[in-house]
Amino acid sequence: MFGPDELTDDGFLDGRLRIWQPRAGYRAATDPVLLAAAVPARARQSVLELGCGAGVASLCLGLRVSGLAQAGLELQPAYAALARMNAARNALALEVVEGDLAAMPADLRRPFDHVMLNPPYFTAGGGTAAADAGRETAQREATPLAVWVDAAIRRLHPGGHMTLIIGADRLPDVLAGCAPRLGSLAVLPLASRAGRAAGRVIVQGRKGGRAAFRLLAPFVLHDGNSHDGDRDSYSSAAAQILRDGGSFPSGL
Amino acid sequence: MFGPDELTDDGFLDGRLRIWQPRAGYRAATDPVLLAAAVPARARQSVLELGCGAGVASLCLGLRVSGLAQAGLELQPAYAALARMNAARNALALEVVEGDLAAMPADLRRPFDHVMLNPPYFTAGGGTAAADAGRETAQREATPLAVWVDAAIRRLHPGGHMTLIIGADRLPDVLAGCAPRLGSLAVLPLASRAGRAAGRVIVQGRKGGRAAFRLLAPFVLHDGNSHDGDRDSYSSAAAQILRDGGSFPSGL
Repeated sequence: MFGPDELTDDGFLDGRLRIWQPRAGYRAATDPVLLAAAVPARARQSVLELGCGAGVASLCLGLRVSGLAQAGLELQPAYAALARMNAARNALALEVVEGDLAAMPADLRRPFDHVMLNPPYFTAGGGTAAADAGRETAQREATPLAVWVDAAIRRLHPGGHMTLIIGADRLPDVLAGCAPRLGSLAVLPLASRAGRAAGRVIVQGRKGGRAAFRLLAPFVLHDGNSHDGDRDSYSSAAAQILRDGGSFPSGL
Repeated sequence: MFGPDELTDDGFLDGRLRIWQPRAGYRAATDPVLLAAAVPARARQSVLELGCGAGVASLCLGLRVSGLAQAGLELQPAYAALARMNAARNALALEVVEGDLAAMPADLRRPFDHVMLNPPYFTAGGGTAAADAGRETAQREATPLAVWVDAAIRRLHPGGHMTLIIGADRLPDVLAGCAPRLGSLAVLPLASRAGRAAGRVIVQGRKGGRAAFRLLAPFVLHDGNSHDGDRDSYSSAAAQILRDGGSFPSGL
């Protein structure tokens, strides 16, 4: 477990969500907030997050949509404990289960209306190893991406939605993992600036869906052509999600 | 063969390319012009087009890059004859071979620096059948898309480039067909207007390439928010390609 001096107290969604995070470990930035904003969940539906970390995505979603039945699976016990603390602190219900998605715990072997995930970004061989073991586990692909996607699809009701955020360079691997069980796929490219290649993608699909694949117009995170130093340069569309807790339109 | 009264005489690239096309058959629009503009060919390289139809893409490329050794494969003899006529008419060298890419003619069983293709857009079951048999053959996926992509990769030198244009809904199928032999993949979404989902995609990759997959910013074909009636509303970037015969930047 993390000691109190190993944690920072961070605000998300303009401070409406208060999150304890490890000072040196895996720290949530915008990815989990964007992920939560893309899940088309409605009251009384069930949602599972694979790899919930300290709980940011699940708790953002719980703040936006009331009356959900939410669960999160987390491999690392210290992060699972943080997710429970953060849920309690924000008065949101989140069932946090410790375990490995490659051997799904019995507690979670039930179908959900939605599964969301923010899988490790770096491939097994790529990038630079994180100095912190917890961050390394959260960011490095120990479990193959195909296993993450397979676990997500298995946990869906027929017609249920998977929503995933990942580095754009992994898009072919995600799509390969979706076919043929997950259909009606839509890809939302996330670009730091207008005219730039996508840095991240959100991929959404329905179990058994038959609609044509769609490659949507990019969602642009920042206005202007370069980073404005310390000034927050979020586009109004991004601010509506990252500060105001809004959502992407349904069907992205 | 087509009779003279079955043909129309059309200009491409602001009229610098003159093309005989069947009045009722498969008629080239912007796709082959955009395809040719995306091929990073240099003088003295070899280029193969799979399914060259009346030759528009190959001849656009030949007009832009001089000194290429170009070949085209076409299944339908009447279209192959048109491609030969069109090459002669525009004083461009194009070796046109009749045959089926699923059983590559011996004449083309050699490696190329570039292979380009604009495979049939509609899946075997989808869309509405074209009244014209030639158009139906050109547009309908009789040969599976995976076979087109496989044939393209087989015909490449190590390090050679495949460039393909297709409806955006087929992107997952194209990517599935590329892995793992074709790498360094880049996807250029083509959108009719800014903010719209991609209608087409250009997919480019290198045989044996190892660079990360890239999802590029969309190329927007038209300015404004709606079609301007009869007025040509091409964006300046699109006009630079479709009228002036320019190319996409190398690496798209």
